Amino acid sequence: MTGWVRIAGLGPGAEALVTPEVTAALEQATDVVGYIPYVARIAPRDGLTLHASDNRAELDRSRLALSLAAEGRRVVVVSSGDPGVFAMAAAVFEALEAGPQEWRNLDVAVLPGITAMLAAAARAGAPLGHDFCAINLSDNLKPRALIEKRLLLAAQADFAMAFYNPRSGARPEGFARALDLLRQCCGGDRLILFARAVSTDQEALTVTTLAEARPEMADMRTVVIVGSSLTRLVDRDGAAPILYTPRSVPA
Amino acid sequence: MTGWVRIAGLGPGAEALVTPEVTAALEQATDVVGYIPYVARIAPRDGLTLHASDNRAELDRSRLALSLAAEGRRVVVVSSGDPGVFAMAAAVFEALEAGPQEWRNLDVAVLPGITAMLAAAARAGAPLGHDFCAINLSDNLKPRALIEKRLLLAAQADFAMAFYNPRSGARPEGFARALDLLRQCCGGDRLILFARAVSTDQEALTVTTLAEARPEMADMRTVVIVGSSLTRLVDRDGAAPILYTPRSVPA
Repeated sequence: MTGWVRIAGLGPGAEALVTPEVTAALEQATDVVGYIPYVARIAPRDGLTLHASDNRAELDRSRLALSLAAEGRRVVVVSSGDPGVFAMAAAVFEALEAGPQEWRNLDVAVLPGITAMLAAAARAGAPLGHDFCAINLSDNLKPRALIEKRLLLAAQADFAMAFYNPRSGARPEGFARALDLLRQCCGGDRLILFARAVSTDQEALTVTTLAEARPEMADMRTVVIVGSSLTRLVDRDGAAPILYTPRSVPA
Repeated sequence: MTGWVRIAGLGPGAEALVTPEVTAALEQATDVVGYIPYVARIAPRDGLTLHASDNRAELDRSRLALSLAAEGRRVVVVSSGDPGVFAMAAAVFEALEAGPQEWRNLDVAVLPGITAMLAAAARAGAPLGHDFCAINLSDNLKPRALIEKRLLLAAQADFAMAFYNPRSGARPEGFARALDLLRQCCGGDRLILFARAVSTDQEALTVTTLAEARPEMADMRTVVIVGSSLTRLVDRDGAAPILYTPRSVPA
């Protein structure tokens, strides 16, 4: 048996957002490796071994996946969203680069998925319909000063901004500081979306302004999108308003 | 019959990258509206009317979709990639906002898809594995000076950058200027990916450096990704090298 690794995106939660490519890879797999809640989405079956591990064990998990593939197993590493956006793909490649030479000959591929910001944007309208950036607000893997520098430059560029991991359990004050900084750069009227657990039973969307935004509106399952200066809200009768960024910037 | 509009992302090209949610909407549709090559992807069937229109007719197409839904039709507006990223969602909401009041009561939803930069990133490795931005390089809808300002600020922020519509037929010199600017800000060693028609028969990927990059490497079907200062290339025997951005930034 020739082993392989597929680093697969399960999308934000709903099965209807899992691509057929990912479903097919899961059907062929002998092993599924991933963070506990993502592995819990995979139905057990004969011939499939599930390897669930805790958060922050990304490199150990990656080494396990590569080792299993080197033994000839067909391994799917599951991520939520898209594996290439603040998820498992970079971790697997870090492990591969640092690992034994034979790992470089493995058949490894990334299978894209619907990342959280795009699912959230779709549900709210089209806030990322013009130029935007995506920033991981967690300071686990980079200095807080770099995060704040990027927020300032993104505000100067007038990007819409999508924030992953806005509020960590360990250091919740970072997100409060980020909101303060954005209020200073962008003004209190700037629109902001809190989108929690999009496409699941726990889905909750809140659109407000930076002036009204509170850090407690986000948790670990929330993606936050701050509009550009042109992002607009269209009110509707009896339906949620539409948040969108026009395609054009006037000269 | 109660009409609706679904603004659906068909992904980059392969059917295996179309979500089941989008497939289900197409099965229920009475009308499909979109740009000619995207409508060409939809199989004709009894009871389904295909409305293909030319490029740059986004607002006309959006008004058609909303008008049909107001008459009770079930309309899918098809985009390639994700409709919320430089595609049809913002256009439909612009038309809705400017249109008759009754359009605000329509059942309109966006169905996300795999956008080109994520498909390209997956194929190359994980170049968008850390903070990044997405910029539409076309100057059809915004001033060239704003594009250049955003490139400079994105380089200062050390974002990886994904570029849509890098090289227009009408004004190809814009992309040459963007490459010059990036070479000045980021240096000639910075890695750059040209990914054309990912997941189709015409797929072609080139990874090179800004020093070696030439404007002709991109056309209208190419998405371009420029790495951050930390983006790396892992060489492999007998397989394409892996382009990825590590998750960590050292303090």
